[in-house]
Amino acid sequence: MQNSAILLITCPDQKGIINAITNFIFNNDGNIIDLEQHVDNSINMFFMRVEWELENFQISKEKFDETFQVNIAESYQMDWKIFYSSSTPKMALFVSQHQHCFYEVMSEYQSNSWKVDIPLVISNHLTLKGFTESLNIPFHHFEINNDNKKEQENLQLQLLKSHQIDFIVLARYMQILSKDFTTQYPNNIINIHHSFLPAFPGAKPYHSAFERGVKIIGATSHYVSEELDGGPIIDHDISYVSHNDNIQSLIRKGKNIEKLVLSRAIWKHLSRKVLVFKNKTVVFE
Amino acid sequence: MQNSAILLITCPDQKGIINAITNFIFNNDGNIIDLEQHVDNSINMFFMRVEWELENFQISKEKFDETFQVNIAESYQMDWKIFYSSSTPKMALFVSQHQHCFYEVMSEYQSNSWKVDIPLVISNHLTLKGFTESLNIPFHHFEINNDNKKEQENLQLQLLKSHQIDFIVLARYMQILSKDFTTQYPNNIINIHHSFLPAFPGAKPYHSAFERGVKIIGATSHYVSEELDGGPIIDHDISYVSHNDNIQSLIRKGKNIEKLVLSRAIWKHLSRKVLVFKNKTVVFE
Amino acid sequence: MQNSAILLITCPDQKGIINAITNFIFNNDGNIIDLEQHVDNSINMFFMRVEWELENFQISKEKFDETFQVNIAESYQMDWKIFYSSSTPKMALFVSQHQHCFYEVMSEYQSNSWKVDIPLVISNHLTLKGFTESLNIPFHHFEINNDNKKEQENLQLQLLKSHQIDFIVLARYMQILSKDFTTQYPNNIINIHHSFLPAFPGAKPYHSAFERGVKIIGATSHYVSEELDGGPIIDHDISYVSHNDNIQSLIRKGKNIEKLVLSRAIWKHLSRKVLVFKNKTVVFE
Amino acid sequence: MQNSAILLITCPDQKGIINAITNFIFNNDGNIIDLEQHVDNSINMFFMRVEWELENFQISKEKFDETFQVNIAESYQMDWKIFYSSSTPKMALFVSQHQHCFYEVMSEYQSNSWKVDIPLVISNHLTLKGFTESLNIPFHHFEINNDNKKEQENLQLQLLKSHQIDFIVLARYMQILSKDFTTQYPNNIINIHHSFLPAFPGAKPYHSAFERGVKIIGATSHYVSEELDGGPIIDHDISYVSHNDNIQSLIRKGKNIEKLVLSRAIWKHLSRKVLVFKNKTVVFE
Repeated sequence: MQNSAILLITCPDQKGIINAITNFIFNNDGNIIDLEQHVDNSINMFFMRVEWELENFQISKEKFDETFQVNIAESYQMDWKIFYSSSTPKMALFVSQHQHCFYEVMSEYQSNSWKVDIPLVISNHLTLKGFTESLNIPFHHFEINNDNKKEQENLQLQLLKSHQIDFIVLARYMQILSKDFTTQYPNNIINIHHSFLPAFPGAKPYHSAFERGVKIIGATSHYVSEELDGGPIIDHDISYVSHNDNIQSLIRKGKNIEKLVLSRAIWKHLSRKVLVFKNKTVVFE
Repeated sequence: MQNSAILLITCPDQKGIINAITNFIFNNDGNIIDLEQHVDNSINMFFMRVEWELENFQISKEKFDETFQVNIAESYQMDWKIFYSSSTPKMALFVSQHQHCFYEVMSEYQSNSWKVDIPLVISNHLTLKGFTESLNIPFHHFEINNDNKKEQENLQLQLLKSHQIDFIVLARYMQILSKDFTTQYPNNIINIHHSFLPAFPGAKPYHSAFERGVKIIGATSHYVSEELDGGPIIDHDISYVSHNDNIQSLIRKGKNIEKLVLSRAIWKHLSRKVLVFKNKTVVFE
Repeated sequence: MQNSAILLITCPDQKGIINAITNFIFNNDGNIIDLEQHVDNSINMFFMRVEWELENFQISKEKFDETFQVNIAESYQMDWKIFYSSSTPKMALFVSQHQHCFYEVMSEYQSNSWKVDIPLVISNHLTLKGFTESLNIPFHHFEINNDNKKEQENLQLQLLKSHQIDFIVLARYMQILSKDFTTQYPNNIINIHHSFLPAFPGAKPYHSAFERGVKIIGATSHYVSEELDGGPIIDHDISYVSHNDNIQSLIRKGKNIEKLVLSRAIWKHLSRKVLVFKNKTVVFE
Repeated sequence: MQNSAILLITCPDQKGIINAITNFIFNNDGNIIDLEQHVDNSINMFFMRVEWELENFQISKEKFDETFQVNIAESYQMDWKIFYSSSTPKMALFVSQHQHCFYEVMSEYQSNSWKVDIPLVISNHLTLKGFTESLNIPFHHFEINNDNKKEQENLQLQLLKSHQIDFIVLARYMQILSKDFTTQYPNNIINIHHSFLPAFPGAKPYHSAFERGVKIIGATSHYVSEELDGGPIIDHDISYVSHNDNIQSLIRKGKNIEKLVLSRAIWKHLSRKVLVFKNKTVVFE
C-alpha cells in the first residue's frame, strides 16, 4: 500500500493554478503519482485531484493545512480537502429488507477489496440482523414511523457521531431522511435509486417503467441532498429490457444494476475521485 | 428473397389461440418459418407475429382477408394485419437541417439494406436539397411558421397521399406535427427524440442533461402520438458520458445514438416486428 | 407459483412441427402460456420451448413420456426433455478462494430469487467454509493436486450422485475438471470464464487483456465441454476499460461482470430457457 | 476556435516531469487549458497531453521545437510531438465496396464536425466513385491483384506524398497493405476490423462469430502495424446478439458498430488524444 496524500481542489479558473500546485509539491520533495484536472468553462471553475507520495515530503500532516492554506489556497480562493492513505474511512451502512445491495457491500468488505471500516449496520427491519452479526458487525434496529421519526433520527445521529462515521451508504434503505439528518453529512450520504434519474424519481420506479413501456431500465447512485432523488449524480448504468419483462423481472434485472452502481459509487468515493460542485459531480477516472 | 406472408395479431388472451392459427396455416398448406407470441398478463392480452411461406399456400391474397376474418379472427376478437413480402413499403422522410440521421437513412437505402421505397424527402429547410437530388429523390421544401402551419401540413398530406406513403420517418425534423396530421398515420410516424425518454422530453434535452449532470445520455425512437414525446417507445440506446463532456460534445456523441436508434426502429418497423397496444409496443426479435 | 410443464424440443426442421405440438397440448386440455421457437436455417434444425398449465391437462406425469414419444416425438425425430415447475432442481456449487461469485449465488439463494436447492458446496480451499456453514449448507473440502485428482474427482462424483445433483456451477473453481468428470454432466456444468471468449481462453485472461491493450474486458458463462473454455456459450457481458486500468483494476472491474454473467446463466438454466445443439446454445428470452 | 498548441509526451517516469512542463509553459505565458497524464507503472513510462492557449505565449512556432528540446525534452529523454490547432490535418480515405463506413465519414466531413481535409479517396473498386465525386472529392481507382500490388502501392504512396497526407483511414478497405506501405505511416493508418479483437482476427469474422455461437459481436479500430489485425487498439464497441442472428443479421448489426468505432477513432486521432507506445495506446478523455 502506498503512503500517499490526495488533495482535492475546487476554485475559480485562472492561469497558473496547476503550476502553483505542482511547484508546491515538487519543491517540498513530493513525488506526484496521479494528477487529474478539469475546467468547466460554462461556470469558469477549476477542479483538481492530485496524489503524491509522502516519503521524503517535507511538510508534516500537522503543518500541511496551514502551510497550504497560506501559501497557495488563499490566493486562488480554493476550496480544498486533503486525505491521507494511511487513515481508513468509517462507513455506516443503512439497510432495510432488500438483501442484494447489502450482500454486495459485504462481499467487497469481507474480501478486503475496499479500504474501509464498517463499524455498524442500521436498519428499520430485522431481516438482515442475523447475517450482519455473523460477520461480527453490530446491528442496530431503529423502527421508524411517522410519530417517532425525528426522535429515531436523533438517536441514529448520536450513534454515528459516537463511531466517528465519515460517510453513510443507503443500501436500499427505504426511508427518506429528514433535512435535519442529511445536512449533517453533506455529500457524504450515498444513495442508490432504482431508476435512471431524472426518469422515474420517487417510489416504485419499476412500476412506472413498465407502465411507460421503456426498453431500458437503470439505476443511479447519488449524494443525498434536500431534494428527493435530486442530489449530485455519481454514476448510473442500464440494462436492456423488452416487452417480455413484467414488473417482477424488471425488479430482478434491476437488482443487478443497483448493486453494481452502488458498489462503483462507494469505490469512487473511497478513492477520493468525486468532487461535488453545486448539484453536479466531477468523477475522475 | 422469400415469398412470405406476415400476420400480426392482437387479441384478448384465451386458450387455444396459437393452436387455431397454426392449424389454419398448416391446413392451408402454409409452412411457418417464424412464430413469436407474447402474453401481457397485466392486461390479459395476446400478441403474435407469424410468418409463413406462400408457396403452396391455398388461400390467395384476394381471399385471405375475408377467410381469416370469418374463420378465425372473429371468434377471438382479433385485431390483425397482414403484410406480404412481395410488396415494398413506401416511406416519406422528413428532415430539417441536421444531417446525421438523413445520412444514416440514405446509407441504408442506397446500399439496399432495407426493402423500402423513398419516393420523396420533405424539409422545412433547403440544407439537404442538393444531396437528396443527387440521389435522384425528389425534395419538397415546405417553409413552416406559426401562420402557415395548418396550410402547409395540408399540402404535405396531399403530397403523401398522392404518393401512397405507408409511413413517415422524422429524421430530426424540428417541427411538431399537429394532431390533425398525426392522426392520419397512427403508429406509422417514427420519430427520433434526442434523449432517453421519459427523461428530458421537449426541446434541448442535451442542455438539460448537462444541467442535471447525468453520466449517461440516450436517444429514443417512438411512434408519434398526440402527446409530445409521449408515444409508444420502439427502441432506445445510451452512451456513457462524464464531467468532461460539455453541451457540444454531448450533442456530438448523441448524434451517433440518435441515428443508430432511428435506423434500428425503421428496420423493426419494416420487418413488421412491432405491434402497438395503447401506449406500448411489443417488439419481437 | 404456476403449476406448469416445460417442453424443450430439438429436431430437424420440417413443415407442421409447431402445429403438431400445439395440437397435442390443446387436445389434451393444456393451456399454453409461453411458446418460443427458432429455426437455424444453416443446419436446418428446429428448436422449441413451450410451457403450459397442468391444471386440466389430461396426461399425467407418469404417462407423458411414453405418450408424447409415441404420438409426436418419433415421427419428427425429436430430441426432447420435459420439466415440471413442481420439482426443484438440485445444484452443487464448486468454489475455490474467490468470494465474489460465491456471494452472488448465495445472495440470490438466500433471498429465494431462484427456485433451486443447494445441498452442498465443494471447494479445494477452506476460505469459504465458515460463511457456507453459517448458512447451514454443508461444506466439503477436497484438496486437489496432480497425484490425487482422479481419486478426489471420483469421491466428488459419489457425493454428487448421493445428493441427486442435477447440475453443477463452477463459481470460479480454479481446477480443470477431467473428461471423466465432465461427461457425467453433459450441458449441466456451468462455468464462468473471466474473459470475453473466444478471446483470452485459459489462465490469467486479465493479464493477457492488459498486455494486448484492449479497451473492453468481458466474462463468459458456458457449459463445460471437453475442450477447455470451448463449450457452448450461454451469455457474456463486457465492461469498458482504459489505459488507466492496470491488472488489479481489470480484475476488480471484471469481478462485477463475472458474477453478473454467471448469475444470469444460472437463471436461464433454471428457467429451462437454454437448449444446446452441438457447440452452440439457443437461449430463449 | 481556440488558437492553441497540443504537446504529446512519452518518457521514462521520474519525479518532477509535470512540474517541469507546467513551469515551462507558465513561464512563457501560456495558459494551460487541458492537461492529462498517465503513468504506466508496469513499464515505468510517463505519458502526457497538455494543451495551452497561444495568445501571449512567448515562443514562436519556429523556435518552439529547439527551445523545448534543449530546455526540457533532452533531460527527461522525452519522445514528443507538438500540434497546432491552426493547421488542418490531411486525411486520405481508402474504401472498397462497402458503403457504411464511407457514408459515416462523409456525413461527419460534410457537416464540418471534424477539423480535417480529405483531398482524395482511393479505392480498388468503382462502387463509390459517383458519390465521392458528387461531393467534389477526387476519386482514384487502383485495381489491385497479386501481380500488381507492389506497383500499385507505390503509385498510391506517390499520390499520398504529393497531397502531403498526414494520416490514412481504411474504411473497410478490403486489401492488406504491405509492410513497405505501412511503415511509411507508422501509427497514422487507422483501420476498422469487424470483430472484437483479439477474437476473430483475419477474414470473415462474422462467419466465425456465428460458428462459435457468441452472444456479443464487436468491432475494433486500431493503428495498422506489421502484424495483421495486431496493431495498437484505439477503441472498440459491441452489440448484443442472439441465436436469432444469422450471418446476414450479424453483418447488418455489425455495420453500425464498425462505423461508430471508426468514427470515434478518427475523432480521437484528430483531437490528438491518442499516444502509442509499443503495441498499446493511451487514449485520453
